[in-house]
Amino acid sequence: MRKLKVGMIGGGGGFFGKVHHRAISLDATREVVAGALHQDPALCEKFADEWGVVGYPDYKAMIADWKAGNLDLDYVTIVTPNFLHAEQAMACLAAGLPVMCEKPMCYTLKEATDLKALAKRKKNAPFALSHTYTGHQMMMLARELIKQGKIGDVRKVETYYNQGWLATLLEKEGNQQASWRTNPKMSGISGCGGDIGTHALINALWTTGLGLKKVSAKLTALPGRKLDDDFNVFGELSNGATLVLTSTQIAIGHKNDNGFRIYGSKGSIEWAQEQAEELHFLDGATRVTYFQNSFTAETPDIVKSYGRIPSGHHEDFLEALGNLHTSLERKIRALKGEKGVAQAYDHPGIDEGVLGMKFLGAAVTSSKKKGAWVTL
Amino acid sequence: MRKLKVGMIGGGGGFFGKVHHRAISLDATREVVAGALHQDPALCEKFADEWGVVGYPDYKAMIADWKAGNLDLDYVTIVTPNFLHAEQAMACLAAGLPVMCEKPMCYTLKEATDLKALAKRKKNAPFALSHTYTGHQMMMLARELIKQGKIGDVRKVETYYNQGWLATLLEKEGNQQASWRTNPKMSGISGCGGDIGTHALINALWTTGLGLKKVSAKLTALPGRKLDDDFNVFGELSNGATLVLTSTQIAIGHKNDNGFRIYGSKGSIEWAQEQAEELHFLDGATRVTYFQNSFTAETPDIVKSYGRIPSGHHEDFLEALGNLHTSLERKIRALKGEKGVAQAYDHPGIDEGVLGMKFLGAAVTSSKKKGAWVTL
Amino acid sequence: MRKLKVGMIGGGGGFFGKVHHRAISLDATREVVAGALHQDPALCEKFADEWGVVGYPDYKAMIADWKAGNLDLDYVTIVTPNFLHAEQAMACLAAGLPVMCEKPMCYTLKEATDLKALAKRKKNAPFALSHTYTGHQMMMLARELIKQGKIGDVRKVETYYNQGWLATLLEKEGNQQASWRTNPKMSGISGCGGDIGTHALINALWTTGLGLKKVSAKLTALPGRKLDDDFNVFGELSNGATLVLTSTQIAIGHKNDNGFRIYGSKGSIEWAQEQAEELHFLDGATRVTYFQNSFTAETPDIVKSYGRIPSGHHEDFLEALGNLHTSLERKIRALKGEKGVAQAYDHPGIDEGVLGMKFLGAAVTSSKKKGAWVTL
Amino acid sequence: MRKLKVGMIGGGGGFFGKVHHRAISLDATREVVAGALHQDPALCEKFADEWGVVGYPDYKAMIADWKAGNLDLDYVTIVTPNFLHAEQAMACLAAGLPVMCEKPMCYTLKEATDLKALAKRKKNAPFALSHTYTGHQMMMLARELIKQGKIGDVRKVETYYNQGWLATLLEKEGNQQASWRTNPKMSGISGCGGDIGTHALINALWTTGLGLKKVSAKLTALPGRKLDDDFNVFGELSNGATLVLTSTQIAIGHKNDNGFRIYGSKGSIEWAQEQAEELHFLDGATRVTYFQNSFTAETPDIVKSYGRIPSGHHEDFLEALGNLHTSLERKIRALKGEKGVAQAYDHPGIDEGVLGMKFLGAAVTSSKKKGAWVTL
Repeated sequence: MRKLKVGMIGGGGGFFGKVHHRAISLDATREVVAGALHQDPALCEKFADEWGVVGYPDYKAMIADWKAGNLDLDYVTIVTPNFLHAEQAMACLAAGLPVMCEKPMCYTLKEATDLKALAKRKKNAPFALSHTYTGHQMMMLARELIKQGKIGDVRKVETYYNQGWLATLLEKEGNQQASWRTNPKMSGISGCGGDIGTHALINALWTTGLGLKKVSAKLTALPGRKLDDDFNVFGELSNGATLVLTSTQIAIGHKNDNGFRIYGSKGSIEWAQEQAEELHFLDGATRVTYFQNSFTAETPDIVKSYGRIPSGHHEDFLEALGNLHTSLERKIRALKGEKGVAQAYDHPGIDEGVLGMKFLGAAVTSSKKKGAWVTL
Repeated sequence: MRKLKVGMIGGGGGFFGKVHHRAISLDATREVVAGALHQDPALCEKFADEWGVVGYPDYKAMIADWKAGNLDLDYVTIVTPNFLHAEQAMACLAAGLPVMCEKPMCYTLKEATDLKALAKRKKNAPFALSHTYTGHQMMMLARELIKQGKIGDVRKVETYYNQGWLATLLEKEGNQQASWRTNPKMSGISGCGGDIGTHALINALWTTGLGLKKVSAKLTALPGRKLDDDFNVFGELSNGATLVLTSTQIAIGHKNDNGFRIYGSKGSIEWAQEQAEELHFLDGATRVTYFQNSFTAETPDIVKSYGRIPSGHHEDFLEALGNLHTSLERKIRALKGEKGVAQAYDHPGIDEGVLGMKFLGAAVTSSKKKGAWVTL
Repeated sequence: MRKLKVGMIGGGGGFFGKVHHRAISLDATREVVAGALHQDPALCEKFADEWGVVGYPDYKAMIADWKAGNLDLDYVTIVTPNFLHAEQAMACLAAGLPVMCEKPMCYTLKEATDLKALAKRKKNAPFALSHTYTGHQMMMLARELIKQGKIGDVRKVETYYNQGWLATLLEKEGNQQASWRTNPKMSGISGCGGDIGTHALINALWTTGLGLKKVSAKLTALPGRKLDDDFNVFGELSNGATLVLTSTQIAIGHKNDNGFRIYGSKGSIEWAQEQAEELHFLDGATRVTYFQNSFTAETPDIVKSYGRIPSGHHEDFLEALGNLHTSLERKIRALKGEKGVAQAYDHPGIDEGVLGMKFLGAAVTSSKKKGAWVTL
Repeated sequence: MRKLKVGMIGGGGGFFGKVHHRAISLDATREVVAGALHQDPALCEKFADEWGVVGYPDYKAMIADWKAGNLDLDYVTIVTPNFLHAEQAMACLAAGLPVMCEKPMCYTLKEATDLKALAKRKKNAPFALSHTYTGHQMMMLARELIKQGKIGDVRKVETYYNQGWLATLLEKEGNQQASWRTNPKMSGISGCGGDIGTHALINALWTTGLGLKKVSAKLTALPGRKLDDDFNVFGELSNGATLVLTSTQIAIGHKNDNGFRIYGSKGSIEWAQEQAEELHFLDGATRVTYFQNSFTAETPDIVKSYGRIPSGHHEDFLEALGNLHTSLERKIRALKGEKGVAQAYDHPGIDEGVLGMKFLGAAVTSSKKKGAWVTL
């Protein structure tokens, strides 16, 4: 089987480019072959050499080479700071190249809706948004169980993402990641909300299939910081259910502590990323724990199809991100007319990207208006 | 050593009177000897006979008998529905009898402030409020570690209490507990908030030593229910820190899932009631778990003095409630001039009772005003 | 309802007398009224005064006073070092007084079989052995589920008890508990095995209902210690299943880490004392967790009848020991002809005591014979 | 950087070839380019096509092509049933090709010692044994902490591996994996012991750095099964410490439940594969939990160098196996004279392979001799 060829935009300096590199590579059905890894030509060459790929200081040149038939590419992965996403994604889609884009999808809502309009026209160039956690098999199972009616009507959703890495003003100490994450010019209107609050949101909404009507928010930042590092939101979901979303980057000792508890009229479903291999269903009396790659009659075949190793050997973050690439890969192979391609799961894309941008705008507005409810 | 003699008001029908009965009895230093266990004389006699105590259909008669020297009592425990607390507690204190009162302390804020005024004058009749969870040794340790500066300045507090027993309209099915808990005439202005939200509040404030400046709330109830069964509050604490308080009674599968995560400038402290024997301290790299009755150099003697059994054999709910009675017992014995009485820990009393009432009022108001911030 | 009157033998100096005192008292249906708390008359008086009971330096005098009608007693609790159990229990039973005896039941197997012979004749004086862990509601449920065929045929049992308190030679430092526990004259032929290995054994056998055919053991002790502090046994159960029993007192950091994993032909059942409120059933795909006082259709009424507080508020060690006293109380009340007495659960007694003694003898012999299998 | 080229022997039909394929690929520094994936030419071609590699029905032809300069290979991974390992590994080493070999290393001890003799002569062809669990970062940290003296002298080691997949006679139902695992002709003298007991052994010995002097064992199998499916061993380690090794394949609900508890004179260290991201250190009072990729002053640089992603995003089974390939890769690159190659960690190799074979022989002998202690 031919491996899909992937180009990357960004990723040379930060840690996350390498993360995508591994998630792309691990199934041995995809490989990174080219990269606009850095804007500085010397650094780009250095990184390209390390990765063993063709380097392009300018991402447009990479696209052009592909257009010209000088470079074999099946899709592009965008791993740049937020303010660059829209321009780069638009250029790829416009050229007909499928995209796996980091989130939050854009810098402004306007960009997001423009990108959506373009994506709708470019049906042969699928657009995927790397809400990595939705790639976990157990989150896919949670979504399926809810669809099957296992917990009845959703009544309340608690979703959270706690980190501690910004408990000090790292941005004043030359930390690159902290610098752009807390800089409005690069990250947009929200720091914590944009970085991890949107994960908490999409984890919950994608899993329940519900929309978000309005929010009331409390955002704060440590003295001396420009963007929120603590981001808490009450919401009302499309069916009237209550949303409680809490996220923070000042909870010392918390690393990537995200998850959700979804309370329905017939039971509850709960998942935590730091024990991603388990999914819990609670009826009134007992708790039933489902395990990754340990299937029951309730497990749809499509969920099974994302498993790689026997139960008890966990698939974790890289595999979850790999699953998002797998979904994109399946779509691309199907569009190419390959035979025997398994069905792609319905992972987040352009709609979740727009939703994330609307959510950030509403939350920031509500917090400024002292908690007033703001409709999306 | 003479056992303290305890009278009880209420408790004959509901389950919680028996809970206090056991918490009073377990140390074999206190015993219930009399009780106005029920207003119905026949039922009162039945319960009194079962418990092996002297029964009084009218609590005033019990107090009168004590006053007249016909009954030996050291203090009274009040376990009636909320709307009765104030009158009964006032009568006890007025007569000079110490009180252990169930929470929330009163039905209205006015009652609470009146009770406080009386309590301040009756220094020989200590007043204790049964915020049971504060009796857990590990919550006492959490409070001491925070006092010692272990986590630096408190920046954010997440406190929660999740239950599922009101996920259906039990009050329509003749459930006694559900009936009065969801009845504004008996419970006051808030259902979930009054029953368990106040626990979440006092757990957090008592442990951190911080006050509460203002709140923004979202309260809801299932259709057909008169009082909130889902009660969520953002708050600003006296030092400017953020409070996130979530409580619910519709989270199917959750029993008495309360606890807190307190994030400070130097570390985090976390505790969960359903694993009450552990307390976690997180620095940036590791998590240190302290165990009940397993002491370190940081454990104050007064905390040790509340331990009963070797570590690894847990002291749980009855023992925690027992500790509140122990604190009251120590105060009473000291006031009587007994020698060698250990120091009483500073468990919740009249001030926490007033705070709870103010909090409920502000939260209910904020929710009605669509999340507007309301100052306490 | 009249409280049962309890006399205690031993318990004045060690911590465990006070533990029984609390377990007896917590239900407010039993009370300690007399005690041969210490052999030293002055100390006995001191402890009796502290406890508020009548003191007897000589336990025989206490029995005599009861016989003479000068003291009201319903049963006696024996909390002395092992070498004294047999004589004291025989004296009680001979006089017709029911007994709650600490384990291991005796000092020698001969004593155990003599005691059994006497107990069989004294049907009106029930004999209970305080294998405390069997009093946990979830262990009772485990036993019932196995009886119901939930896990099919038992194929392998892993049972364990890990402690760390003897990781140093405490007996050389004047520690009273360590001194008699490591002294063959007071404890018998085994230290760790007698103290906690028998708990691990009875936990497993009582729960499965299986007997023990033969054992192969490895016992060791730290240099300078007289009795084993590490006690590991392979066994063959009466149905041919394999037993793996591990117990130790040198596992630093372990407090009372006992529990079992029972593997059957249809599933597994697992319980751990340090999370006593949960019981796990594993089929091939999921894990179902049962919670204390949270009942399903599988929960027998007799198991429910031992619950005290709502689920989510745990009943732990004192309550479990209390349950053993409750079982004895129910037997005594029924023998007295009281009406409406609930049925007593089948907690360990004389047969488990004899089994424990045989087990210790066989394990010690096997270890000396370099692991040779020894038949019980 | 040039990717290392890997050839594979076996792996076409079973699941584990694909597991190695992913572990090799995930870092994008190694790739499988050729494979003797199956002995059946048609199947070999089919698998080679799926994998996108050059297929060789005969592994010798693959080696010959490499020798002849027709195929670029840096090392070979052997994933065949046990009875084939020795011949294939010998052929590779003899030709000068480094090897990553599945365990148990051989079919007989004779083969193992022959292989060892050859490996010692072929210093430019490193030999690695895929004891995958030792690749976990936290197991590497455990080993380093013990070396640093953190727990003092090792006194007792409990190591375990519980599975449930052979709780029924799958080998009678056409299950390929079960068929060869329970077939003495393909697996050797032990089933459970060879498959997972050796993992439990090497996990413990490699981590502590101790040797094994002698064993006493109890092995059983379900009726109708030819090799043990339950394998329990007491051992004496080189320093006199006690080993308790338990492994089973009939524990329904257990997947890959392996781990260890190591008790020393100053503390305990404990790790469980199904929560591989945590390592626990217990002193007498508290438990300190270390997290993967969350480093302290005690973490050696070489351990850090194996981390891929930020703490809180777990590296699990594929990454652990990847780490073994990384260690082999580092050795190969260093031997080739590449610059800037990080130091390889000391993962298991030929000596652990020989030890595993000796251990299996001694355990099987002891069990046949009714638990007699057998010296290795």
